[in-house]
Amino acid sequence: MKALVYEGPGKKALKDHAVPEITAPTDAIVKIVKTTICGTDLHLLKGDVPTCAPGRILGHEGVGIVDKVGSGVTAFHPGDRVIVSCISSCGKCDYCRHGMYSHCVNGGWILGNTIDGTQAEFVRIPFADTSLYHIPAGADEEALVMLSDILPTGFECGVLNGKVQPGSTVAIVGSGPIGLAALLTAQFYSPAEIIMIDFDNNRLEVATRFGATTVINNKDGKAVEKVMKMTSGRGVDTAIEAVGAPASFITCEDIVAPGGIIANIGVHGVKADLHLEKLWDRNIAITTRLVDTVTTSMLLKTVQSHKIDPKRLITHRFELDKILDAYETFGNAAKTSALKVIIEA
Amino acid sequence: MKALVYEGPGKKALKDHAVPEITAPTDAIVKIVKTTICGTDLHLLKGDVPTCAPGRILGHEGVGIVDKVGSGVTAFHPGDRVIVSCISSCGKCDYCRHGMYSHCVNGGWILGNTIDGTQAEFVRIPFADTSLYHIPAGADEEALVMLSDILPTGFECGVLNGKVQPGSTVAIVGSGPIGLAALLTAQFYSPAEIIMIDFDNNRLEVATRFGATTVINNKDGKAVEKVMKMTSGRGVDTAIEAVGAPASFITCEDIVAPGGIIANIGVHGVKADLHLEKLWDRNIAITTRLVDTVTTSMLLKTVQSHKIDPKRLITHRFELDKILDAYETFGNAAKTSALKVIIEA
Amino acid sequence: MKALVYEGPGKKALKDHAVPEITAPTDAIVKIVKTTICGTDLHLLKGDVPTCAPGRILGHEGVGIVDKVGSGVTAFHPGDRVIVSCISSCGKCDYCRHGMYSHCVNGGWILGNTIDGTQAEFVRIPFADTSLYHIPAGADEEALVMLSDILPTGFECGVLNGKVQPGSTVAIVGSGPIGLAALLTAQFYSPAEIIMIDFDNNRLEVATRFGATTVINNKDGKAVEKVMKMTSGRGVDTAIEAVGAPASFITCEDIVAPGGIIANIGVHGVKADLHLEKLWDRNIAITTRLVDTVTTSMLLKTVQSHKIDPKRLITHRFELDKILDAYETFGNAAKTSALKVIIEA
Amino acid sequence: MKALVYEGPGKKALKDHAVPEITAPTDAIVKIVKTTICGTDLHLLKGDVPTCAPGRILGHEGVGIVDKVGSGVTAFHPGDRVIVSCISSCGKCDYCRHGMYSHCVNGGWILGNTIDGTQAEFVRIPFADTSLYHIPAGADEEALVMLSDILPTGFECGVLNGKVQPGSTVAIVGSGPIGLAALLTAQFYSPAEIIMIDFDNNRLEVATRFGATTVINNKDGKAVEKVMKMTSGRGVDTAIEAVGAPASFITCEDIVAPGGIIANIGVHGVKADLHLEKLWDRNIAITTRLVDTVTTSMLLKTVQSHKIDPKRLITHRFELDKILDAYETFGNAAKTSALKVIIEA
Repeated sequence: MKALVYEGPGKKALKDHAVPEITAPTDAIVKIVKTTICGTDLHLLKGDVPTCAPGRILGHEGVGIVDKVGSGVTAFHPGDRVIVSCISSCGKCDYCRHGMYSHCVNGGWILGNTIDGTQAEFVRIPFADTSLYHIPAGADEEALVMLSDILPTGFECGVLNGKVQPGSTVAIVGSGPIGLAALLTAQFYSPAEIIMIDFDNNRLEVATRFGATTVINNKDGKAVEKVMKMTSGRGVDTAIEAVGAPASFITCEDIVAPGGIIANIGVHGVKADLHLEKLWDRNIAITTRLVDTVTTSMLLKTVQSHKIDPKRLITHRFELDKILDAYETFGNAAKTSALKVIIEA
Repeated sequence: MKALVYEGPGKKALKDHAVPEITAPTDAIVKIVKTTICGTDLHLLKGDVPTCAPGRILGHEGVGIVDKVGSGVTAFHPGDRVIVSCISSCGKCDYCRHGMYSHCVNGGWILGNTIDGTQAEFVRIPFADTSLYHIPAGADEEALVMLSDILPTGFECGVLNGKVQPGSTVAIVGSGPIGLAALLTAQFYSPAEIIMIDFDNNRLEVATRFGATTVINNKDGKAVEKVMKMTSGRGVDTAIEAVGAPASFITCEDIVAPGGIIANIGVHGVKADLHLEKLWDRNIAITTRLVDTVTTSMLLKTVQSHKIDPKRLITHRFELDKILDAYETFGNAAKTSALKVIIEA
Repeated sequence: MKALVYEGPGKKALKDHAVPEITAPTDAIVKIVKTTICGTDLHLLKGDVPTCAPGRILGHEGVGIVDKVGSGVTAFHPGDRVIVSCISSCGKCDYCRHGMYSHCVNGGWILGNTIDGTQAEFVRIPFADTSLYHIPAGADEEALVMLSDILPTGFECGVLNGKVQPGSTVAIVGSGPIGLAALLTAQFYSPAEIIMIDFDNNRLEVATRFGATTVINNKDGKAVEKVMKMTSGRGVDTAIEAVGAPASFITCEDIVAPGGIIANIGVHGVKADLHLEKLWDRNIAITTRLVDTVTTSMLLKTVQSHKIDPKRLITHRFELDKILDAYETFGNAAKTSALKVIIEA
Repeated sequence: MKALVYEGPGKKALKDHAVPEITAPTDAIVKIVKTTICGTDLHLLKGDVPTCAPGRILGHEGVGIVDKVGSGVTAFHPGDRVIVSCISSCGKCDYCRHGMYSHCVNGGWILGNTIDGTQAEFVRIPFADTSLYHIPAGADEEALVMLSDILPTGFECGVLNGKVQPGSTVAIVGSGPIGLAALLTAQFYSPAEIIMIDFDNNRLEVATRFGATTVINNKDGKAVEKVMKMTSGRGVDTAIEAVGAPASFITCEDIVAPGGIIANIGVHGVKADLHLEKLWDRNIAITTRLVDTVTTSMLLKTVQSHKIDPKRLITHRFELDKILDAYETFGNAAKTSALKVIIEA
């Protein structure tokens, strides 16, 4: 089969690769129908994630058709159409039993990281019964690719952790795909204001189309000032960090209201300053989270009932044998205005 | 009347002072029976709190007898025995209506800060109906002095924010009065382990007597290593910062388990490093809080039903005219082993 | 002034009445601009509520202009445009301090019940600072009449107690004004399905326009069967009782899914059968609540940000001197299709 | 092997029975070390539970040693000492994924009901990885028999659902084993008062020894009156029904305070009157639950850290071949004062 393989820092190739086999009774082999590229894949390619060794097939998102199942798999059968979760969950360990699949001691985020991933014609999914989700008949499968990772990430790490409420004021720092996923899912809770902050006018225009009530281009460094003015000096109830950089985290510290929450989604490579001298008495909470994908079923219901249209995140489409072009397009988002790119296998 | 007056950085005096008068219909004048000194008073005396001007009577804790009430006070009458809350709450503003009295736009922490406080024979209490608490007949009033500030602070900022649970593992960094208040109130929830970390063996001995299951003297800098070993590398469910220093906050970052909480109680004067590069995917929460004193009634019930004995925090007793000695004793805790000192007015 | 006065079971009259005066420092006198009639007023008129004595001016909803304030009122001034809350909250008692204003020991639901109400040119509002809400400049005041009672009642008792969630399935039994208020506010949380059950096709058509995804006319007694079929035998996550009758409560018992909630809004005059022999092992919750109006500010924000349009509940408008016609219209809703009627004073 | 077999209404026998075999890869065979009898077993024997067919080995509690495991079992190995949970949880279905194991579509309460149970020398445990719990080295295994059912039932259905809090007032109606389990676990949360109501003075004496602050023998029918007097007419924050009868449920309705909770534990055979005409405006919640055993790990930690001693529930001990005597003793608790009886296999 064809597969996109990481070949060491800065190197990747579309190669022929052996089709994966069942290695444990709880495995399934899934024939990929559609997959996508995540910002994390770009990090992996830079060599930033030491757990990912050269030779690894990348990708942790996708929809497909079950091809084979191990003897212990009971909920899925060959031919079933499925969403692949970016998190593999054994369903048995203490973390899984408490809904924290991200820290599953037997799984977690392993796909396209410590085991081969979804940017290929076939993928092996461990713990299939608890890591795949049935696609309802008639569903738009392209839209459901967004349920592998980006939608639950924006929702769980940003919106749920951020306790977005009817009538509340939310700011999202970062209007890339993940910030936009938070924007879309925040609207499940009818906040009064969603302020989107970025440096890229195109992304802010998208944010406006997606429901942001205010957009701020922070090139002039005045976002904090503007947010505080808009909120009469109070700040926002929920500040969502969707970049993964110290500066944007500190913006969140500066705009969170007393009693508010900073919900971090961003993947951080370095520390940030925590201004406890200003925050110790502000009654705030700061949360971090690797997506648990505990809300996949819930999100599927919101998609099926048209409460959200995740397809709006998709800007480009490619065939698998053009996946290098897809990477090129996705990696140059500032120029191409790419959000999520679909790759058809 | 006699009163302990702040006279500018480093200076204080026990002076004669005019008895306070009712200035608003919602005021009460309380004759102080017992008061105490808080670590915050030492900060104020250093000049660290710019809102506190020279000439201010210090003190925000105490029990007393209502002497006079304004025309708008309905729940208290002269002769009533009362606990003075360290937080003045108007009961009307949005923050008060949502249980965040600490941020009351008309009050908050003003006693012994922006208005005269309790280290005197009489004190004016604004918003008396919502800032005083009736003392039940027969109660031990000395014990109840601990309900003005230290017990709700340890409980609300440390234990409630830290979501201590039956069977959980708690670490408290800092075994001073406030860490010990967290230790006492954490036991309301029957955690399996409470690990106490400090540099002072005397305070750790007290912690053991107060119910700590493990004490660690961190002089050798090995507290993190020891906690991780004790918890099989997992870390603690709740890490309570009860010092107010970057190093102890970072200890909390180092020992919090995936899914755990860092509950900050400490008053911080400088920023701390937040190691988001390690924490972004750990599913943790960090909370800060100025005590709201929303649990005063609840704590009073626990004291009256003998679920907790706050008197154990009291080590020394003085008359008001010896309050300078009381400050001396409290300020040299390392030598005197002082925890809370009672001053009888 | 003119006022609608209850004159004993079955009797009411529009009469001249003395203008109310300030009787406590915390009172305000409000000149009513618009008021409305509640289903509860019909109960009162029947003599069903013994606390309401003949001679009482009815009405507990409305918007108006502050005319006079007592000396203890600090947040409102003559000329302020205000929403009158149906619940008077002293802000001081234990219940008020814990957000349960409905059980305020000094207030609660007293307006138009134990004290004179809003169906008049002027009304005395006790505890004005904590029982009135400022109307933002430019707001549509007619819409805000719905914030006195019906919207917070549907929201707090039905939607919040019922824990409506994104993707969840909700059934509302009763499509009268209060059921429709629950329907409108349930949509704050993006449930996948809202099933509306009633006997009146007109009301069900309104429900469809207001966002119900399914409507069921239960004249054939098959609502339970239909709901169970629609949910593949599972039942609904939230069943909201919005009638106040044993039969509709039992419908809720019959359709609630394991793990679900029955949120009662209805005012009940008699007991209902609780089928514990079927429910004891179903992991359900049943909630009851008299509206606390703790969400008035939140709802105001949702109205101001156009997340909801409460005006849709208004079907008829009358002048105060035609209030008897208004009662006639409201009392014959089956014929007149009345939902909420506005009375301009 | 020897086994206690249900032989139709009113009939049971200790018989020779084939040793169970692995029938699915997720099964384990456990050699029972100690088991016990549950009140539910008496119901089963009466023929009250139609899912339980004659020929069934009874029993859903016990500790033992893993004898064999299926090929899909990864967390347990022959020789492991284990607690058997009364609830079998597949770990995969929607209910299991959301912590509601009681409603597992593949399991739930099946042991000693629809499949053979633990009152035998060996038992087959389906879904072993998610239905067994490791016994820590050195633990008192007899105490841990209480973790199969009675302790999590009292805790989850009574204490957690009842939201017992520090300083709160709890009433438990029914001082049998399950009421006493609620009493023991309620103390994890340091309520101020725990009032125990029963008709049996011996059980009430036990309750006093176990930590009840007040006991009331309701033979005179004055329990409601006494509770209301004790609480100054307010009622209790949490009322736990631990009998399973209409009268005791109604006692709970009569004593629950505004804002309080009725947490039902009892197994009910008939409906009860729900006095909505009194409760509709009381802001209460009523909860029902079949134990999910989601707290087994948490409870194990509380036992291991000596926060609770479940052994106090054990009054009698028998060998397996005397299990008919054990039933006799347990079934005549009024005479024998039996609470839990241990049967050693």
